[in-house]
Amino acid sequence: MINRQFRRAARPVGLPKSTDWAFGQEPVKAPNEGEVLVKVHCISLDPAMRGWMNEGKSYIPPVALGEVMRAGTAGVVVESKNARFAKGDYVVGIHGVQEYGVSDGRDLIKVDAGKAPLSSYLGGLGMTGLSAYFGLYEIGKPKEGETVLVSGAAGAVGGVVGQLAKISGCRAVGIAGGADKCAYLKELGFDEAIDYKSQDLVSEIKKACPKGVDVFFDNVGGETLDAALSRLAPHARVVICGAISQYNNTTPVKGPSNYLSLLVNRAKMEGFVVFDYRAKYAEAMAVLVAHFSEGKLKIKEHVETGLENFPDVFLKLFRGENFGKLVLKIAD
Amino acid sequence: MINRQFRRAARPVGLPKSTDWAFGQEPVKAPNEGEVLVKVHCISLDPAMRGWMNEGKSYIPPVALGEVMRAGTAGVVVESKNARFAKGDYVVGIHGVQEYGVSDGRDLIKVDAGKAPLSSYLGGLGMTGLSAYFGLYEIGKPKEGETVLVSGAAGAVGGVVGQLAKISGCRAVGIAGGADKCAYLKELGFDEAIDYKSQDLVSEIKKACPKGVDVFFDNVGGETLDAALSRLAPHARVVICGAISQYNNTTPVKGPSNYLSLLVNRAKMEGFVVFDYRAKYAEAMAVLVAHFSEGKLKIKEHVETGLENFPDVFLKLFRGENFGKLVLKIAD
Repeated sequence: MINRQFRRAARPVGLPKSTDWAFGQEPVKAPNEGEVLVKVHCISLDPAMRGWMNEGKSYIPPVALGEVMRAGTAGVVVESKNARFAKGDYVVGIHGVQEYGVSDGRDLIKVDAGKAPLSSYLGGLGMTGLSAYFGLYEIGKPKEGETVLVSGAAGAVGGVVGQLAKISGCRAVGIAGGADKCAYLKELGFDEAIDYKSQDLVSEIKKACPKGVDVFFDNVGGETLDAALSRLAPHARVVICGAISQYNNTTPVKGPSNYLSLLVNRAKMEGFVVFDYRAKYAEAMAVLVAHFSEGKLKIKEHVETGLENFPDVFLKLFRGENFGKLVLKIAD
Repeated sequence: MINRQFRRAARPVGLPKSTDWAFGQEPVKAPNEGEVLVKVHCISLDPAMRGWMNEGKSYIPPVALGEVMRAGTAGVVVESKNARFAKGDYVVGIHGVQEYGVSDGRDLIKVDAGKAPLSSYLGGLGMTGLSAYFGLYEIGKPKEGETVLVSGAAGAVGGVVGQLAKISGCRAVGIAGGADKCAYLKELGFDEAIDYKSQDLVSEIKKACPKGVDVFFDNVGGETLDAALSRLAPHARVVICGAISQYNNTTPVKGPSNYLSLLVNRAKMEGFVVFDYRAKYAEAMAVLVAHFSEGKLKIKEHVETGLENFPDVFLKLFRGENFGKLVLKIAD
């Protein structure tokens, strides 16, 4: 059996180009004692992957040149030498941009493909949903009646954040680009949607958040972060989940000029990394699946197909072309 | 009796000029029932006063044009119609840049002029010391053995922060401008002093904080904040006390480009306002006075004299010309 893969070929400057990747193949590895072989069905494409391509100290090591690109995956166990897993089990893991992966099982989570489509365990019910869940509840700590503002709200994480905020009795306001995405936020139950492409952010945030912003969940950075900082409520919490506007900069990152709003409002800005909450994954996933089953959590996926299309599909994230969690389906 | 005063005359652009002030006089007001009349001995000059001259929403209202400039003061009760105060009591309050003030007593704190010079209750044992105390302990929450980095370390707040960090069993590293100030930091017991005027900040912070920065207490902002962010330890706390490098900007505030270090390090950046801790002032002042009496807390004052010199003396703060807490003495 053949395992086709994308490995890193060059260090990108700005947006990754096709020549930054090497598409190749090798024989499928056989699992050793204690390991399982997983056939990958879906690959999760996430903005954070861009960060893993940069040199330097971060929350996990960068993917070195020559290595298979790291990515979250959902698939099925095709051979098991690990007592915890049986052939036919559906699992999510981090097998990267390839067709087959071998794992000792420590990073694998078994999922119930009967309760939701397999791909949703990469998105709203998987790491994406978990990022929303832990960022909102562990860092943002919203209280009933508070206002939660979310940037990148039509994105995979943002959409879940807004819905969880509503479930928790908060006012949810989303920022997204374009009328379609804003209409989608209303479908998800957001109280207000702000189109950053056609509206003035600061004045729209002021209108949509008349009592100020208690929790700002930021996926975007740049001007969006600055606008939100200008409308913080006292004791606000700014959750730094990402900064997609800045990831492909070839100039320095734009720091938030309005950061002194943290002082004036006795507010805090805090970053988090979802991997730190591993011990609580199962508990949180159960909550997300329950919300989904009850119809309280809607999940939108943007599914593309074909492993060979990875370099191009990945760029959709940075061009704002995906609408919902971006997943690359490579097998059924 | 005559009360000489500085009132606001114009809105400053950048550094306040002498024409931004009006020096005048009026008869001393008599206290009403419940009030006391205080003769001001010393006026506290603080960077935060510059912020109070700007328009717009902040943690306290701006000082309007025509009003006496707000400032912390230490003085003596010369007439009392309030049962809590007697003639001859030494008190600190917020009587502004003038010779006499009337108060209903709610903002006054009685101090013991026998235990420390009256002026020190404006500085290391007063609001300045309290800012250091609450910012460090309530926001920074240093643990024994951690590294506390302080900017503006030779300043009034910074010097106390470093000494409290040492008392709490931490490694204290200070950033200050010039060899004299750095030598002074060593006198105060800082483990390391970094001269931002002659050394490369990022590499010096790296050297002085080999395990990373657990708590960064920032009084400066700008490049200094960025340099510190680049060396955060996991779960670091950045305390935003001020941003003296940015207060007189006529260009936008420089936001911290390295703020995504908060994400990578699961760190937080939080502002605070000392006035929020009013209920704990007495308790904290008792701790500071005890440290002072035991010789564990050294306080440096930069005393200038003469009410009429206020506009010029105030600027020393922004030119880095004061060395220690800046106090304007206007009576003995």
